Amino acid sequence: MDCIFCRIAGGEIESNILYQDDQVIAFPDINPNAPVHILVVPLKHIESLVDLTASEEPLMGHMRAVANRLARDAGVSQKGYRLVVNCGPEGGQLVPHLHLHLLGGRKMGSLG
Amino acid sequence: MDCIFCRIAGGEIESNILYQDDQVIAFPDINPNAPVHILVVPLKHIESLVDLTASEEPLMGHMRAVANRLARDAGVSQKGYRLVVNCGPEGGQLVPHLHLHLLGGRKMGSLG
Repeated sequence: MDCIFCRIAGGEIESNILYQDDQVIAFPDINPNAPVHILVVPLKHIESLVDLTASEEPLMGHMRAVANRLARDAGVSQKGYRLVVNCGPEGGQLVPHLHLHLLGGRKMGSLG
Repeated sequence: MDCIFCRIAGGEIESNILYQDDQVIAFPDINPNAPVHILVVPLKHIESLVDLTASEEPLMGHMRAVANRLARDAGVSQKGYRLVVNCGPEGGQLVPHLHLHLLGGRKMGSLG
């Protein structure tokens, strides 16, 4: 198990866990791109968006719902925020374990 | 009904519809930010992410699944792509009707 997100989820690497349930975990990005930059990560090791099966379709809905809750907790719900999922090399995915970026706390710029 | 996405969904404004089912519609962004830039939009007028109810949680999973299918159709599945949802003014949301951006066809840059 050399996946860094699996090691964080398993408690092997310490992180500031902001949320956890039986499906996902959330913690701050270690290289933040905005004042609020949180990752929502499924506990199950799913490599990327393209690897999600039809039965896993609800997972992204749940990740989104968790992100909304974290946006509220971080006080950025009203001003606004951005959710990003990168997939594969051209998408800019750096860690090969599916994750959703929640970004807020400043006016977001280009889509990338 | 002065919402531009509702008017596209209703056929009142012509667009190049790439996908449609009983929940969502997809068409190219008129101001593309990448060679592939497609919007996946729910037919129902939901203003933004913060307005999604718990019962609408599966909708984002479905929008993601449709985006994956469109990424495959556009030939960017393997190289990679990015999904973005902007919410509210600081998130960069320009049209007040929930939509998911699918971006690909070049290496994506910053998260914004």
